[in-house]
Amino acid sequence: MSRRIKLVLSYDGTDFSGWQVQPEQRTVQGELEKALYKLHGERTSTIVAGRTDSGVHALGQVCHFDADSSIPGEKYREAINSLLPGDVRILSSLEVIRDFSARYSALMRSYKYLIQECTVPSPFSRKYALSLRELPPLRYLNECARQVIGVHDFTAFTAAGDPSKTKIREIFSSSFYMENGYLVYKIEGTAFLWKMIRSIIGTILETAPLSFPGERMKDILESGDRTMAGTTAPAKGLYFYKVRYDEQQG
Amino acid sequence: MSRRIKLVLSYDGTDFSGWQVQPEQRTVQGELEKALYKLHGERTSTIVAGRTDSGVHALGQVCHFDADSSIPGEKYREAINSLLPGDVRILSSLEVIRDFSARYSALMRSYKYLIQECTVPSPFSRKYALSLRELPPLRYLNECARQVIGVHDFTAFTAAGDPSKTKIREIFSSSFYMENGYLVYKIEGTAFLWKMIRSIIGTILETAPLSFPGERMKDILESGDRTMAGTTAPAKGLYFYKVRYDEQQG
Repeated sequence: MSRRIKLVLSYDGTDFSGWQVQPEQRTVQGELEKALYKLHGERTSTIVAGRTDSGVHALGQVCHFDADSSIPGEKYREAINSLLPGDVRILSSLEVIRDFSARYSALMRSYKYLIQECTVPSPFSRKYALSLRELPPLRYLNECARQVIGVHDFTAFTAAGDPSKTKIREIFSSSFYMENGYLVYKIEGTAFLWKMIRSIIGTILETAPLSFPGERMKDILESGDRTMAGTTAPAKGLYFYKVRYDEQQG
Repeated sequence: MSRRIKLVLSYDGTDFSGWQVQPEQRTVQGELEKALYKLHGERTSTIVAGRTDSGVHALGQVCHFDADSSIPGEKYREAINSLLPGDVRILSSLEVIRDFSARYSALMRSYKYLIQECTVPSPFSRKYALSLRELPPLRYLNECARQVIGVHDFTAFTAAGDPSKTKIREIFSSSFYMENGYLVYKIEGTAFLWKMIRSIIGTILETAPLSFPGERMKDILESGDRTMAGTTAPAKGLYFYKVRYDEQQG
């Protein structure tokens, strides 16, 4: 009988056309399923918690697959890593119950966005953070960030082409803070619409320097009007950070 | 009359065959002199403080050149950056006195080496730090690091082919400490022999876990015997950090 394996993985999104397998493109799922094919000798499909876009990174992405192999769950990590390119790494592997789904069992997903204040963009963060000459005051950034907490219709912050039936999502936390010399934006929610986080960040960065930033942010959210929101922030600063599951499942 | 310009620059060494111009190779000096050629319409030679090897990074490298142009010293930064690839950036530019030499006026050069403790090497530090499964205790690392401080003959810690007449160098500081989740080794000295720092680090990492690490390190240094030293640590963890000049000159 086949077993279900959960993987936690990290990847540098720079040279990937996102998570999802696409013909002629180098994707994380593509590289992972190639490695699993070598390991199992047959096609193995993976289901992921968050299908990241092209250029988006991951620190604690989660996926699962089913396998008939005799490889112990925790041995998959080394086995798969030996077959993967260096820009994607399995951090841990574990056998889980058949009911577990990396996608549907997720209770909370969180993302981080990294911003660096600098006159000259550092050669080291050019692919890993957004560089800004001047940061708006943390207080105003957080006044804006707070507005998206709770249950809202996020139509104003998604891209045309998002396939979700409802644009209503619940956000548990949304805040800016300094960490290791970077300005970090962290957002936690059940799930996110397509380009929703990058659209929220782009809008906050444009709104925070204005007067009454919190009120403006609230107006944009409530308008449900995409044209009122700001530019979508670049993918290179975004990191899929973590997924939380029910303790009995994950 | 031509003026002398001092540049402070940072580069991601990953895709460079080191600093120095070499035929058919992509080097930092090569890219910089190409940009200066476009700017001045004639060949402009640069003199650097530390000729870094292939794969070695720089946070505060310094070089100078002479130019007949009318570009103000502090405007060179933007002018050159607009002509350079993203993995090398001019952090500042300044007109200096004709006596200044990025190389010969340097009173102190410092380097940092980054090490990360992890079971699985992170996709984000794979080109920017050495990954180790387990770090020796900081106390023993520093017992070894201390031994190289002062004036010593560093024959044991250089590579065959180093062209320097004397292998005697003065080291002002040499220590390990934690910074932003990395173990950092920092060394400050007048100047360094070829591969000297990577050879010191490689030796310390092999010596620190043994008994009497300080005494062993001292013996290796005093032996003047390259075969007693450890493996040369990989270039990807090494950063040219800073140069100090006489205040009137730099």
